Amino acid sequence: MAKLNDNFLKLKAGYLFPEIGRRVGAFTEANPTAAARLIRCGIGDVTEALPLSVRNAMKAAVDELGDRHTFRGYGPEQGYDFLREAIAKNMYQARGVGVEADEIFVSDGSKCDTGNILDIFGKGNKIAITDPVYPVYVDTNVMAGNTGEADASGAFDGLVYLPCTAENDFVPAIPDESVDLIYLCYPNNPTGATATREQLEAWVAYARKHGSIILYDAAYEAFVKDESVPRSIFEIEGARECAIEFRSFSKNGGFTGVRCAFTVVPKELKADCGGEPKAVHPLWSRRQSTKFNGVSYPVQRAAEALFSEEGKAEVDELIEHYLGNASLLRETCEEIGLEVYGGVNAPYVWVRCPEGIDSWGMFDRMLEKANVVITPGAGFGAAGEGFFRISAFNSRANVEEVCSRLKAEKF
Amino acid sequence: MAKLNDNFLKLKAGYLFPEIGRRVGAFTEANPTAAARLIRCGIGDVTEALPLSVRNAMKAAVDELGDRHTFRGYGPEQGYDFLREAIAKNMYQARGVGVEADEIFVSDGSKCDTGNILDIFGKGNKIAITDPVYPVYVDTNVMAGNTGEADASGAFDGLVYLPCTAENDFVPAIPDESVDLIYLCYPNNPTGATATREQLEAWVAYARKHGSIILYDAAYEAFVKDESVPRSIFEIEGARECAIEFRSFSKNGGFTGVRCAFTVVPKELKADCGGEPKAVHPLWSRRQSTKFNGVSYPVQRAAEALFSEEGKAEVDELIEHYLGNASLLRETCEEIGLEVYGGVNAPYVWVRCPEGIDSWGMFDRMLEKANVVITPGAGFGAAGEGFFRISAFNSRANVEEVCSRLKAEKF
Repeated sequence: MAKLNDNFLKLKAGYLFPEIGRRVGAFTEANPTAAARLIRCGIGDVTEALPLSVRNAMKAAVDELGDRHTFRGYGPEQGYDFLREAIAKNMYQARGVGVEADEIFVSDGSKCDTGNILDIFGKGNKIAITDPVYPVYVDTNVMAGNTGEADASGAFDGLVYLPCTAENDFVPAIPDESVDLIYLCYPNNPTGATATREQLEAWVAYARKHGSIILYDAAYEAFVKDESVPRSIFEIEGARECAIEFRSFSKNGGFTGVRCAFTVVPKELKADCGGEPKAVHPLWSRRQSTKFNGVSYPVQRAAEALFSEEGKAEVDELIEHYLGNASLLRETCEEIGLEVYGGVNAPYVWVRCPEGIDSWGMFDRMLEKANVVITPGAGFGAAGEGFFRISAFNSRANVEEVCSRLKAEKF
Repeated sequence: MAKLNDNFLKLKAGYLFPEIGRRVGAFTEANPTAAARLIRCGIGDVTEALPLSVRNAMKAAVDELGDRHTFRGYGPEQGYDFLREAIAKNMYQARGVGVEADEIFVSDGSKCDTGNILDIFGKGNKIAITDPVYPVYVDTNVMAGNTGEADASGAFDGLVYLPCTAENDFVPAIPDESVDLIYLCYPNNPTGATATREQLEAWVAYARKHGSIILYDAAYEAFVKDESVPRSIFEIEGARECAIEFRSFSKNGGFTGVRCAFTVVPKELKADCGGEPKAVHPLWSRRQSTKFNGVSYPVQRAAEALFSEEGKAEVDELIEHYLGNASLLRETCEEIGLEVYGGVNAPYVWVRCPEGIDSWGMFDRMLEKANVVITPGAGFGAAGEGFFRISAFNSRANVEEVCSRLKAEKF
C-alpha cells in the first residue's frame, strides 16, 4: 500500500490562522450583531489599494500577452532579468550592499520559499528557531522529518529553541552549542522587534565559526525607518558566506493577493554536500528549475513598477500609513497601562497580557468584548504565551476605532 | 557544518530543457545567419495570444485591487471558491464525472504540483514511472531520496521503469510486481499517445488491488477530440479510491506565462499513514496551507474566464490551431518516409530517428541543417532513445516552414 509521510501526524491540530478563523467563525455565527462590528487585527494582511503604478504595469503586461508578437510563454524559472536587476539595483546596490541580479530568485511568496528551502538541505542538520516564531518554519521542519514529537507546550523534540523575551529585547542570545541552520526574522514577526547591527554581527560571527547557515527572513524590511537598523543581513560583513535572505513584495507593495517575493542566495555560500563543501546557489537553482515554473509575467512587471519613481512614492505612502497605525496602537496600549513592545520600524505591536489571563484567553476576551481579532502569542510558540500581537495592517478609521474600544474596555 | 541534500549529486548534469537551451545558444552564437532562421519546436510552450476574455477578466481584477473597498489580500491557499466551482462544474460534472469543488486545489503550475506532491508521501514507496517520461517526475524523486544512483543509460536504481514502445502503443503493460506510486500521463508527453478506457481500467484495477496510487497528469486533456478517449482518470470507475489528477491551464488557455493549474485529490483516497489507512486529502490541504499562499487573484479570475461562453470558444480555437499544426507535422514526416506516432488528440508528434542516428545526433542535425529545434527522445529516458519529439505549439506559418524544410532536407 502507498505510504503517506507520517511526520504529518506530529503536527498540531491547526495551523494558527485557520484556528483563529474557526473561532471567529463560531463567534460571528452566534453573534450576528457583534459580527457587523468585527475588526480584524489578526493576520498580517495588507488592506490598502494596490498602487496605481503597479496596476498600470500589470495591465500593460496583460495587453502584451494579447498580441502574438509580444506574447510570452514560460519565463525563466528564476525570474525575468528585468526584475532581478531592478531588485539588485534598488534594494541592495543603492544601499551599498553587494548582491548581484543572478543571486536573486524570484518566487510567488516567502512562505513558499522559507518552506521549500528545506528541499536542498540534508538530514541531520541541527535546527535553531526563535521562540516565539512564524509557525511555518516549525511546521515545514516537522513535515520534512527534522523533528521528533511535540511536548505539551507544543515544543518539538530535536529543535533548538532560542527564547526571545522582553529581557533580551526579543533578539536571542548566541547559543552555547553548535547549530547548523538558524531562522532569524527582523523586523520580527510576531514581536515587532528589530535587531541591531551589533546583534547581527554576533550572529554572523557565530555562523561563520560553526559553518552554520542563517535563514534570514526580511519580509518586513520596508518598515525600517531608522537608518542605524539593518534592513538586510547582507549589510553585515561576512554574511555572504553564511546567510540566505528571504524578501517579499507583500507588505511594501501590498502584494499579498498578487504574489511575488524573492530569495537571495550568495554565490560564496557553501555547505557540506556528500562530505565536502559545495556551493548552495546551484542547488537552489536546480530545485527551482525542477519544481517551479516562474512567476506570472504580469505579476513580475507589477513588482518591477514598485521601483519606478511613482512606485517608490506610493510604497512610501503605504508604509507611512501602516507605521502611523502602529504608533496609534502602541500609544493606546501604553495609555491603558499595558506593557507594549514593537510597533516602531515594524507593523506589529506585541503586548503583554494583563495579569491572570493567558493569550488565547485574551484572544477570546478581545473578540467577545471589543469585537477585535488579535493573534494570541501562544500560537507562535511557548515563549509567546502571555503576549498577544496586534497587526497595524488596517484602515486608519478601523485602527482609531480599535483604539477607542481598547480605551473603553480598559483591558 | 550545515549539510546539503546530497541526493542532488545524483542528478544528471542538466535538466533537459536547459541543456537544449545551451546547445541552441552555442549554435546561434556561432551561426548568426542561421540563428535568424531558427524555429523552435522543442519546448512545449504555447505561442498564440492570450484570449481576450482572459485579458478582460484579469484587468477587471486588477482594477478591483485598486479600490480599498474591493481590495483582496491573502486568498484561500486552496484557491477561491469561484474558480474551484467553475472547474468542478465545467471540467468534470458537465461530463458526468463526480469531482467536487473542495477536492480541487488551485496552484501556480502542474510542474510545482507533480513535484511537491512527494512532500505528503513517506519513505519506502516503490515508484513506477513510464519510460520515456517528463523528466520532472524522475528528478523530484531523486531529490527526495527515493532512488539510488543512475546507471550509464540514465536509469535510476530503485525506480520501476515501465517501457512505452511502439509495440505497446506507448501505454505500459501492467507490471508483475507490486508498486505503490505510478506516474501516468495521457495524452502523453512526450509520445503524444493516448490511453484507451480499457487500458486505464486495467491500471485502476491494478492500483486498487495493490493499494497503489496513480499520479495522473492530464495536462493535455484539452487536445482530446475523440469522445471515446478518456480525458480524466476519474472517468474510470473506482479511480476515486486510487488516483490524484493534475491539470493545468497552460495548454488550453495559453497560460504558460500566466501560471495557473490545479490538482484533484478525491476524499475517498486513502494510504497508509503510521500503520493505518488515512485520507490523503487533509495532508495535501495541510501541505498547501503551510507551504503555499494561493494563486494571484487576477490570475484566478483569468482562469475563471476560460469557462465563460466567450472563453470556451477562444479555447476551442486555440486547440484547433495547435491540432492543425500537429496534423501538418505528422503528415509531412510520414510523407518523407519517417515512422510517426502521436499528433492526434495530442500536441506532440513522436518520430523514429532515421537508421544510424541517435536522438541527440538528430537534434544536432535538425538544428544545423534545418535550423529547427526539436527535443531528443533520450532526454525523456532510455526508452526514448531512437525517437525525437516535435512540438505543435507554434504559428501556422512556422509549422508550414518547418514542413517545407523537412521535405527539402529529406531527413
